[in-house]
Amino acid sequence: MKGLPSLERVVVVLSRFPGIGPKSARRMAYYLLRRGQEATGELIDALEGMRAQIRSCEQCHNLSEAALCWICADPSRDRGRICVVEEPSDLLAMEKAGLGQGVYHVLGGRLSPLDGVGPDALHLASLEQRLMQGGCLELIVATNPTVEGEATAHFVAHLAQPLVARVTRLAHGLPMGGELEYLDESTLYQAMLGRRVFSLDSCD
Amino acid sequence: MKGLPSLERVVVVLSRFPGIGPKSARRMAYYLLRRGQEATGELIDALEGMRAQIRSCEQCHNLSEAALCWICADPSRDRGRICVVEEPSDLLAMEKAGLGQGVYHVLGGRLSPLDGVGPDALHLASLEQRLMQGGCLELIVATNPTVEGEATAHFVAHLAQPLVARVTRLAHGLPMGGELEYLDESTLYQAMLGRRVFSLDSCD
Repeated sequence: MKGLPSLERVVVVLSRFPGIGPKSARRMAYYLLRRGQEATGELIDALEGMRAQIRSCEQCHNLSEAALCWICADPSRDRGRICVVEEPSDLLAMEKAGLGQGVYHVLGGRLSPLDGVGPDALHLASLEQRLMQGGCLELIVATNPTVEGEATAHFVAHLAQPLVARVTRLAHGLPMGGELEYLDESTLYQAMLGRRVFSLDSCD
Repeated sequence: MKGLPSLERVVVVLSRFPGIGPKSARRMAYYLLRRGQEATGELIDALEGMRAQIRSCEQCHNLSEAALCWICADPSRDRGRICVVEEPSDLLAMEKAGLGQGVYHVLGGRLSPLDGVGPDALHLASLEQRLMQGGCLELIVATNPTVEGEATAHFVAHLAQPLVARVTRLAHGLPMGGELEYLDESTLYQAMLGRRVFSLDSCD
């Protein structure tokens, strides 16, 4: 709106969020103005708290408010199984799926030469160090099934293979609930490549 | 996520925004954490600027950074035509539609006895004062076509009628691009009530 540069600035900053367009950003800013100074103050306080308190876990680079994140600090976790993910949100997805028996290593992104993200920008040196300390029996590479995620997976596997007995990756194939008709070729190709013997006795 | 109360607080506050669910709120918080301290700082700065600088126009209660908003400060506006709207966002919609020749009066809401919003909570006293000063030839009531908006419109009209020659309201009827088949009964009823003689000569 004309004559309100401070409002426009909030709209511009909010529009940068994923999934928030200029219209939603404007609606959010209006909501704050309608709710009054306290609502804006509450959001500012919450953001300041987050900025001050959240840091990176010293061991796995997950988000944490302490030196070690809640997973690395949990003595019941299997430290022999390290799962490599791109972002803390991927870690959360794995945990939600009930796959969290081991520990994690968060890379902090994926290799993306076009965006200037090389190996040095990811937490690969600390992964190598962790593996050199021994004790890891299986490294599960769980990067995203994108071109960049796959390239990152290969890089991680190459780095880890001399140091760990077993380097595995998540299976590629048909997503549950999907229909063959609507799946892309490369998913079908991967599903065919990874086909398994039908076992009627066990459901492993 | 466990062990991150400061993150959860940001998610809770962001979830209160209209159109932002817990999932979008979490995605926004993760985005901030991924972008680093500067991104959060930039949002905090923008919010603080907005909180410090935006106030209510002394005349029409539109959002403003000065004593008078950009509309009230514009000498080319027709001060004989005041359009009453609920919120600054409604004013913006009218302006965008190219209907901004006159000036506005922003009520700051609508009458809603169930939510405890009575006439005293709206900018009605200042509207009455403005009208008593004279000079207003037409008061256009442009509240929303909801039950509460209609009640507010009646209240405003009742207050204004002794003070202004012409109190008008926006027409109710078929929205452009809508289909009769999908319109609700009350819209059709209003469209029938408000029907006009078909004029092939002029398109007024």
